[in-house]
Amino acid sequence: MRAGESGDPLLGRLVETSGPVEALAQIRGGSLAANSAGVLARDSGRSPSDLQTRVAAWRARLLAVDPARDLATGYSQGARLVVPGDVEWPTQLDDLGVSRPTGLWVKGAADLRYSCLRSVAVVGARAATPYGVHVATACAAELSEAGWSIVSGGAYGIDAAAHRGALAGEAATIAVLACGTDYCYPSGHHDLFAAVRERGALVSESPPGMYPTRSRFLVRNRLIAALSRGTVVVEAALRSGALNTVNHALALHRHVGVVPGPITSAASAGCHLLLRQGKAQCVTGPTEVIDLIGGIGADLAPEPRAPVVPRDSLSAEARAVLDAVPSRGRGAGPATIAVAAGVDLATALSRLGALAAAGYVQHGPNGWRLRFRS
Amino acid sequence: MRAGESGDPLLGRLVETSGPVEALAQIRGGSLAANSAGVLARDSGRSPSDLQTRVAAWRARLLAVDPARDLATGYSQGARLVVPGDVEWPTQLDDLGVSRPTGLWVKGAADLRYSCLRSVAVVGARAATPYGVHVATACAAELSEAGWSIVSGGAYGIDAAAHRGALAGEAATIAVLACGTDYCYPSGHHDLFAAVRERGALVSESPPGMYPTRSRFLVRNRLIAALSRGTVVVEAALRSGALNTVNHALALHRHVGVVPGPITSAASAGCHLLLRQGKAQCVTGPTEVIDLIGGIGADLAPEPRAPVVPRDSLSAEARAVLDAVPSRGRGAGPATIAVAAGVDLATALSRLGALAAAGYVQHGPNGWRLRFRS
Repeated sequence: MRAGESGDPLLGRLVETSGPVEALAQIRGGSLAANSAGVLARDSGRSPSDLQTRVAAWRARLLAVDPARDLATGYSQGARLVVPGDVEWPTQLDDLGVSRPTGLWVKGAADLRYSCLRSVAVVGARAATPYGVHVATACAAELSEAGWSIVSGGAYGIDAAAHRGALAGEAATIAVLACGTDYCYPSGHHDLFAAVRERGALVSESPPGMYPTRSRFLVRNRLIAALSRGTVVVEAALRSGALNTVNHALALHRHVGVVPGPITSAASAGCHLLLRQGKAQCVTGPTEVIDLIGGIGADLAPEPRAPVVPRDSLSAEARAVLDAVPSRGRGAGPATIAVAAGVDLATALSRLGALAAAGYVQHGPNGWRLRFRS
Repeated sequence: MRAGESGDPLLGRLVETSGPVEALAQIRGGSLAANSAGVLARDSGRSPSDLQTRVAAWRARLLAVDPARDLATGYSQGARLVVPGDVEWPTQLDDLGVSRPTGLWVKGAADLRYSCLRSVAVVGARAATPYGVHVATACAAELSEAGWSIVSGGAYGIDAAAHRGALAGEAATIAVLACGTDYCYPSGHHDLFAAVRERGALVSESPPGMYPTRSRFLVRNRLIAALSRGTVVVEAALRSGALNTVNHALALHRHVGVVPGPITSAASAGCHLLLRQGKAQCVTGPTEVIDLIGGIGADLAPEPRAPVVPRDSLSAEARAVLDAVPSRGRGAGPATIAVAAGVDLATALSRLGALAAAGYVQHGPNGWRLRFRS
């Protein structure tokens, strides 16, 4: 929905009330239908003339955009648009309510929904100290080794350290950007973003070509909080954007952990403030992060110890797909597996999803492979 | 009561039940009176023969000691024995119940009761890092500048840093020792203890000549917790004795603050554990320490801002004493003030106490002087 800025709750409410097709028609027509206008006026407390002004602004913006061209550009660059209802849509974004994004551009090898099932946001200061960079890297690497995906932004400092740590581990790493997935901001992260695309994904609400603005960073932060099971702040000054992410995480009832640091370091002052406010739990290592976030709720993906469904109770088709998944070396893509199992691609994808949920297989950077038992 | 070890709760209960004179007579006689034996058996769950064994042990120990010689030795060394009921007795020690000390040896210029009215225990690791030493010194100095006395042990590391910081400030500093006040342990603290005696006091339950043992350090920790309004831990490893002091402080319903540090430092691991257990509040500077501990209870000495009683409403005698207190330079002793005010020494002391409570005068290292207004 390119008519409004990402995260516009008024536009979100209109889409929620009327459905995206009808909402689009109303904006194109330049005026709200009577029932939509009534709902929006009641919920937002805005006057009819104020609402009309907003609709006019959406319409003007809509006239300037070309969704078909956006899609063509994105796909030609290797990005895909994931929308609610898609298999890859991370359903935990529904927790955002009216500020739920209408779609996400995803560019990278990882499946976004699968990657975010067991994920931790690791965020913090751009102006990180060597201590913070060390801690973020080591913590993300150990979380990744333990099968937890990392979610962060794309900035210098803690964001970059978290991705670098995750890349040293096993799991996917997700960089949520405030600009289009084709826009490399900061430009010094060209190589890092390339590595993230290989092993994880770049994610953005913004279509290709959209540049980052300060407000887009702030609305982006809600996605980092919502995509992950919990947020860990490694270093944050008193006015850090990471505190904004923490407030989103708390509003979404996600757990928040902070890593303490020396009280003589301004880069840890925001972390200590969160501790003093009782907003966050003190965490001193990856095990404590998993303790905090792993226990968040009953809908958590099970700890990948051993399969929960006995192999004998699998259907013949599921067993055929399972037998086609390589146990070692590089993984295999779904098409390869479908051919080897003698099923069509859609069946292979569906069975692979069920086998992953049951703990038999996992989706790694090089495709599907058997999950190691421990 | 030299018959038992310091903090022996059984002996404490006997003294509580029978009074010190009667308790001493029973121990000298080698057997408990029927009513004392009944109370002790009921409270401790010990058998009569077990109690009899304890009494025999107390008696044997009592035969080996000479309280009159202890007193003579102590006084000849400049130490004084302060017991419950004395003007200098810190009444907050009553919170210790049956493990309340029967008396304290005090050696130094400061009045123990007055010093502990507004006091903070600053404790932590012997094996402190440069970070911990810096933080303890700076924090104690600022607390001392703000009129808060420091209470700590006499060890290397955080204890010593706390005293050194306090010596740079204005208020008294109290070193609570696990050995006699004549015993310099560790011997490297000869000069530090001399400075503490000048500006504060060395305090011990043990009579002169008693050497430190491991168990005496542990029972000593309850005094550090009980003498102060609250305890702040600067650095503590996971098995630090400072955690023992914290447990005493919590049992006494005192507030506990901890200073966080790098998670990569084993010297801060105990602090972070206390935070994670919810036993302590995170504090990052002296202001936050005062916020935490200053609000502990209604019996707290008022913040020394301005006198609460107008000068005009003072009695003529009180005004005469007040006029005799020097406003600058070195303070004056009570005898000097009594002579200048034309009252006797007891009247001068009584008026000075009331004037101190009203915020007019303060007792510093060199005697009484007017309190500076802020």
